Amino acid sequence: MNGSTATLLISCPDQKGLVAKIANFIYSNGGNIIHADQHTDFSAGLFLTRLEWQLDGFNLPKPMIEPAFAAIAKPLDAVWSLHFSDVTPRIAIWVTKQNHCLLDLLWRQQAKEIAAEIPLMISNHKQLQPIAEQFGIDFHHIPITKETKLEQEAKQLELLRHYNIDLVVLAKYMQILSPEFVEKFPHVINIHHSFLPAFPGANPYQRAYERGVKIIGATAHYVTADLDEGPIIEQDVERISHRDTVGDLIRKGKDLERMVLARAVRLHLQNRVLVYENKTVVFT
Amino acid sequence: MNGSTATLLISCPDQKGLVAKIANFIYSNGGNIIHADQHTDFSAGLFLTRLEWQLDGFNLPKPMIEPAFAAIAKPLDAVWSLHFSDVTPRIAIWVTKQNHCLLDLLWRQQAKEIAAEIPLMISNHKQLQPIAEQFGIDFHHIPITKETKLEQEAKQLELLRHYNIDLVVLAKYMQILSPEFVEKFPHVINIHHSFLPAFPGANPYQRAYERGVKIIGATAHYVTADLDEGPIIEQDVERISHRDTVGDLIRKGKDLERMVLARAVRLHLQNRVLVYENKTVVFT
Amino acid sequence: MNGSTATLLISCPDQKGLVAKIANFIYSNGGNIIHADQHTDFSAGLFLTRLEWQLDGFNLPKPMIEPAFAAIAKPLDAVWSLHFSDVTPRIAIWVTKQNHCLLDLLWRQQAKEIAAEIPLMISNHKQLQPIAEQFGIDFHHIPITKETKLEQEAKQLELLRHYNIDLVVLAKYMQILSPEFVEKFPHVINIHHSFLPAFPGANPYQRAYERGVKIIGATAHYVTADLDEGPIIEQDVERISHRDTVGDLIRKGKDLERMVLARAVRLHLQNRVLVYENKTVVFT
Amino acid sequence: MNGSTATLLISCPDQKGLVAKIANFIYSNGGNIIHADQHTDFSAGLFLTRLEWQLDGFNLPKPMIEPAFAAIAKPLDAVWSLHFSDVTPRIAIWVTKQNHCLLDLLWRQQAKEIAAEIPLMISNHKQLQPIAEQFGIDFHHIPITKETKLEQEAKQLELLRHYNIDLVVLAKYMQILSPEFVEKFPHVINIHHSFLPAFPGANPYQRAYERGVKIIGATAHYVTADLDEGPIIEQDVERISHRDTVGDLIRKGKDLERMVLARAVRLHLQNRVLVYENKTVVFT
Repeated sequence: MNGSTATLLISCPDQKGLVAKIANFIYSNGGNIIHADQHTDFSAGLFLTRLEWQLDGFNLPKPMIEPAFAAIAKPLDAVWSLHFSDVTPRIAIWVTKQNHCLLDLLWRQQAKEIAAEIPLMISNHKQLQPIAEQFGIDFHHIPITKETKLEQEAKQLELLRHYNIDLVVLAKYMQILSPEFVEKFPHVINIHHSFLPAFPGANPYQRAYERGVKIIGATAHYVTADLDEGPIIEQDVERISHRDTVGDLIRKGKDLERMVLARAVRLHLQNRVLVYENKTVVFT
Repeated sequence: MNGSTATLLISCPDQKGLVAKIANFIYSNGGNIIHADQHTDFSAGLFLTRLEWQLDGFNLPKPMIEPAFAAIAKPLDAVWSLHFSDVTPRIAIWVTKQNHCLLDLLWRQQAKEIAAEIPLMISNHKQLQPIAEQFGIDFHHIPITKETKLEQEAKQLELLRHYNIDLVVLAKYMQILSPEFVEKFPHVINIHHSFLPAFPGANPYQRAYERGVKIIGATAHYVTADLDEGPIIEQDVERISHRDTVGDLIRKGKDLERMVLARAVRLHLQNRVLVYENKTVVFT
Repeated sequence: MNGSTATLLISCPDQKGLVAKIANFIYSNGGNIIHADQHTDFSAGLFLTRLEWQLDGFNLPKPMIEPAFAAIAKPLDAVWSLHFSDVTPRIAIWVTKQNHCLLDLLWRQQAKEIAAEIPLMISNHKQLQPIAEQFGIDFHHIPITKETKLEQEAKQLELLRHYNIDLVVLAKYMQILSPEFVEKFPHVINIHHSFLPAFPGANPYQRAYERGVKIIGATAHYVTADLDEGPIIEQDVERISHRDTVGDLIRKGKDLERMVLARAVRLHLQNRVLVYENKTVVFT
Repeated sequence: MNGSTATLLISCPDQKGLVAKIANFIYSNGGNIIHADQHTDFSAGLFLTRLEWQLDGFNLPKPMIEPAFAAIAKPLDAVWSLHFSDVTPRIAIWVTKQNHCLLDLLWRQQAKEIAAEIPLMISNHKQLQPIAEQFGIDFHHIPITKETKLEQEAKQLELLRHYNIDLVVLAKYMQILSPEFVEKFPHVINIHHSFLPAFPGANPYQRAYERGVKIIGATAHYVTADLDEGPIIEQDVERISHRDTVGDLIRKGKDLERMVLARAVRLHLQNRVLVYENKTVVFT
């Protein structure tokens, strides 16, 4: 199982023979499938699949795979993407003042749990700049006010282009992205500190405390134009009791947040997440 | 640890010496405390406690305990209640058509996990009448329409009085109780088939499916005038995936519902739940 | 997605083209795959797959599918089995004195969560005979002593043959099956009341209490000649504390046991479990 | 709730009036109890309690509290300890090569989740020395061989004395402490990478993989002379599947290990853990 692999993520209208057709494409070119997973949403009439195969021994050279598969995908009316394991994705981490999610991601990258380069950090505050320096990451301080938001977002987009960023991870970035930003750069994962759809928006732990829930949660999701309404990638929860103050909820929530965000980023980077109808299929 | 016990549930404004004063009341009368638990909510300035002691060897006869403690409670401005383990509470179970929570409660009562008598079942439909007959429980069919609701609730209240009911358990009773009913009979536990405050109201599983959550839940709470807004006693959750249809959510949810409802009813019957500010303290 | 389906469970040495070959078999005969899942264990060099397709529109008549696929499976050196959703499996439930797993399975069968007939109950005691009668199930009382074990097992095997049983579910049957029995009838699922491999054998809750663990569990597994060492199908756990007595552990454990056993039986009946090297692949 | 507090941890033979006597001691000296918890183990005939009260307004000066309570504790035959929140405990962290538990503890200390000084790190390897330097912690490299173990343990004990260490945390220290060491310094918490008592000793993830369990775990416990047999403070678990390789188990286990160890250390430092009969009472 050494060597590079290619991964296809495909969704298309359901019809007979899809598994056979796609598997044949790989097999007929000498590929060895190492992971194949599929899902049919019968109510949506949609077939979704993820196939990963070894490039070693595959007859098509890498640049030829995309056009070759396009010929198969077109009559299937498929939406699809192709990924190579030897192309390392580039992440920008955006933060505000809290460091727990940031440090967790950086540790996981160093431990090779997250296969990505992290060349860029953006923050609306300066508190976490020393961490960027310690890890050798370029840090850009871009404060946001109501008045400057649009022009600052233009700067942010320019930085994403300049650093050739594939994915933005909002690691407790306490600002809302404008719909225009999300339209221009849709690959953004956010961690929300509640078990969505409970407690969207501000101060979820305070509100969870006031409501007297017995379990709190965290939610990682793709960012869309609607606040905290994007497709959910991963959630997790933790039991609490009347003994827990709001401070305890925040403390326990930090552990949830970093675990859930890290899992979501890892799943995304391994090309295990497909989105449709504002939901995700996660091929674990 | 054999023999009957008495349990005091107390909440009062926090002040110095509360633990000592209350413990002294029991000790000075020869009582042996077998469980004591307390909680102070500093933001609310409230002290809450539960004390259970053996009646065997206690110097005060049972009818004298309440007036004796009243003298202590009054200067503390305490809200309190006294319970004896040899007085078996009486439950009415209300259902509609689904039997899983009902059967679960009946099994647990037979297995002595739930220490209560269940002399009465009320339903707005007739489907579950055979179960009532099988278990020797009186069954009253009280259909509800918008027009008849008030007069039917009067009948229900009359039945609760007639059967001397201490607690109503809504075991998937798919009708909303009027605020007037709840005011007249406030001891009602409901099971809601979602992780409140997510998905209150109708069709929570359908909505959880559409939102694409990765975890579903169930919530047992006391019923108040505000639908699905009462104090939460117990919650639990279960992980789901894109492979789960709405039908799977309903099936998995049934297991959550019966577990969570049974735990809440047991906690209530053991006098482990105190309510304040629309929240619960659960002394487990 | 209505109508009957066929399901293939296959394991074979890993090689290129397996997904394509098997999918082609179904597609070339006009079948519509509704579920396909596969797993490669690279250390074992083994490929395992589960394919389910609609019989409606499939060109091969049911009796022809097995021989047709045999021709494909042979050169792959595959171990495989074929199942039809319109053939209802037949279960025998074996019990001793505890009724919680039994009642849970019976309720799930009536609720159509478990698609099986249950014509036979066997017990080494008579306590649960009334439940068999209530549900219209034949009950056979087969007491076991050291001296009579072998001849009684012969009677049990004869009953399994007579009732045409596909699966034995040990729903808290507190006797050990002999290796000879298991060899003759290998389709047996047991529920063990601990988180295996912790606390195999007798009195797991007592031992968990004495060890002071903070979490208890239950394990459903296929029965093999080695006690509590068979392939694990499903496990679950529950948090406990110092407040829990052995009696509390037993009570909480009952809920774990019935959930875990029911899930394992359901997974088996849906042909989602493949066994190799004393482990299971569970295609959920 | 500001200001310093005192905490009493007490265990003694159960008898009438214990709660009253101990609460009276605090109340009669003008103390305000902010947390009180107790547990009676009826089979062991043991009463255990934890009381925390504000020193502000308490009539006894700090040095007088211990002798004053000793007079009360003696006739109760109590084992007890007294702790002040304004005395910061001192931790030594011992590691080998893995950094995840170490970094997690250091982050939590910086985030003030763990109220302790960490002046000392000891390791049998040099890999993690740079982390010690980065955090300003003295690092001592003490390699261990069978032959040198005793003399090296003498060095370790000398360092603990020199640095005035209250608690040793084995944060993936892959050496076994001798019974003699543990007798001389009994305040040691270890993290074991399995759900004890399953898979004690070496290579638990490999063995969990081979056994085919569906859930893995981690266990934090006090170290005793018997390997992996000490009193368990905290455990947690994570679901796995056939898709998880040994490498995945190790990766998922790391998250369990750091969470479980951090929780155990925090509970210990908050004086919430009492040990008896090789078990713990954890007052959360």
